[in-house]
Amino acid sequence: MDNRPIGIFDSGVGGLTVFSELIKALPNEDMIYLGDTKQFPYGNKSKDTIIELTKRNTEFLIKKDVKAVVIACGTATSQALDSVCDIYNVPVIGIIKPTVTSLNNEKPKRVGVMATTGTIRSKTWQTEIKKYMPDTEIINQACPLLAQMAEEGWIDNDVARLTIREYVKVFKERPVEKLILGCTHYPLFMKTIEEELGTGTEIIDTGKKVGNYLKEYLKNEQKEANRKKQANYEFFLTDMESQFLNVAKNILQRDIEIKKARMHI
Amino acid sequence: MDNRPIGIFDSGVGGLTVFSELIKALPNEDMIYLGDTKQFPYGNKSKDTIIELTKRNTEFLIKKDVKAVVIACGTATSQALDSVCDIYNVPVIGIIKPTVTSLNNEKPKRVGVMATTGTIRSKTWQTEIKKYMPDTEIINQACPLLAQMAEEGWIDNDVARLTIREYVKVFKERPVEKLILGCTHYPLFMKTIEEELGTGTEIIDTGKKVGNYLKEYLKNEQKEANRKKQANYEFFLTDMESQFLNVAKNILQRDIEIKKARMHI
Repeated sequence: MDNRPIGIFDSGVGGLTVFSELIKALPNEDMIYLGDTKQFPYGNKSKDTIIELTKRNTEFLIKKDVKAVVIACGTATSQALDSVCDIYNVPVIGIIKPTVTSLNNEKPKRVGVMATTGTIRSKTWQTEIKKYMPDTEIINQACPLLAQMAEEGWIDNDVARLTIREYVKVFKERPVEKLILGCTHYPLFMKTIEEELGTGTEIIDTGKKVGNYLKEYLKNEQKEANRKKQANYEFFLTDMESQFLNVAKNILQRDIEIKKARMHI
Repeated sequence: MDNRPIGIFDSGVGGLTVFSELIKALPNEDMIYLGDTKQFPYGNKSKDTIIELTKRNTEFLIKKDVKAVVIACGTATSQALDSVCDIYNVPVIGIIKPTVTSLNNEKPKRVGVMATTGTIRSKTWQTEIKKYMPDTEIINQACPLLAQMAEEGWIDNDVARLTIREYVKVFKERPVEKLILGCTHYPLFMKTIEEELGTGTEIIDTGKKVGNYLKEYLKNEQKEANRKKQANYEFFLTDMESQFLNVAKNILQRDIEIKKARMHI
């Protein structure tokens, strides 16, 4: 039994798609969410910068006494998880391993990955999928702009649709059984992606996979919270002037209160 | 006579539209360009962050022994110039005053401003225009996403066109005599903006105005360079992994060499 909260971070509002799945899978757990809106977007930053920011965010959450850190950001998972997973005394969990291991039973022949430029460049999804499923073919599509559109709340308009139409072209030419949304902002566009892609492909929201993985982990380690009161959620942002509250309301279907996370740039 | 270079900075590649006008207006001057690609985009960061980054960039250029610093970034000009213009022993010039003073002869009745969210929120264009032309009406349009599209090289495609169509709607409903491109990335979309806007409006590229202003300033202060050799240009980026080189080639019509500017995040 461990009543400490779970820490979650993302570059902005995208990690809330993971957060919303975590609170479904783990309704008794307290959570602390950190959105690094000051440094958003992560998608086109270099690996060194992403590692530096990931360490800083992880340490911010560890100082809040969390029992686990979830990197609810595809870019930070793909480029920095390896560099931070062994250096802290709490487990640090990304979005890639929980997703890939969940696909392992089905061994799909062809898998698509939509992600930021940095994530695609890192080839982390590819490496991780090949580790478990060496015969699976992977088709990658970098999608700069989508995370930014999500952050601005441009989720359901013609520009988002046209951008997505451009990005999914490759998966219409070479159909995939599973399409992984490798950036946590992209589930916000789920409806449009489904419509533009057509039928025959299962779209994978990594948040659900992380929720199942973390539930299993806490159970195995006997670290589940044990309390009767309602779970408590705290939200910190590094920069307050963003569309965070509006997009958050859309995702979580409730009003939330945000606090300023003070960090050096 | 002063043979020291002129320093120019922007959050990314947009300031090159100013740079390209400066080298036309001042062909004998050496220039040092700094693109803060690591922190791009500035447009949705808070005022405090913009001031912090502007100081850091200005000090980087001053350490390179420049005789003047041009803030070739609308967001940094609008939110940080006031805080930095008096604290260094070299002049710091933004894009707003040179543009506004150049319009003063014509005293247009209605002026439009397209800029980042941060710039529009700061009301700096409005305040500066009203100072010289109290009877001029100003129509503002925040354009998140456009700078990001420019940075990705999405300059001439349907997504850019649809985004611009959305942003210029207000200027079709309430026509303006002059439309100021208040972010230095936007001249990259000049053709599309012209086409979507239709005739009757003069579109103002601030780079040209800054070129004229700086030429006049150097002449008055007798700080013009005096040399026969070809001018020398240096380009620094805070993060090397961006589309900078591709977009730069498009703007400058030549290949350039870039160096890494080492700074703490």
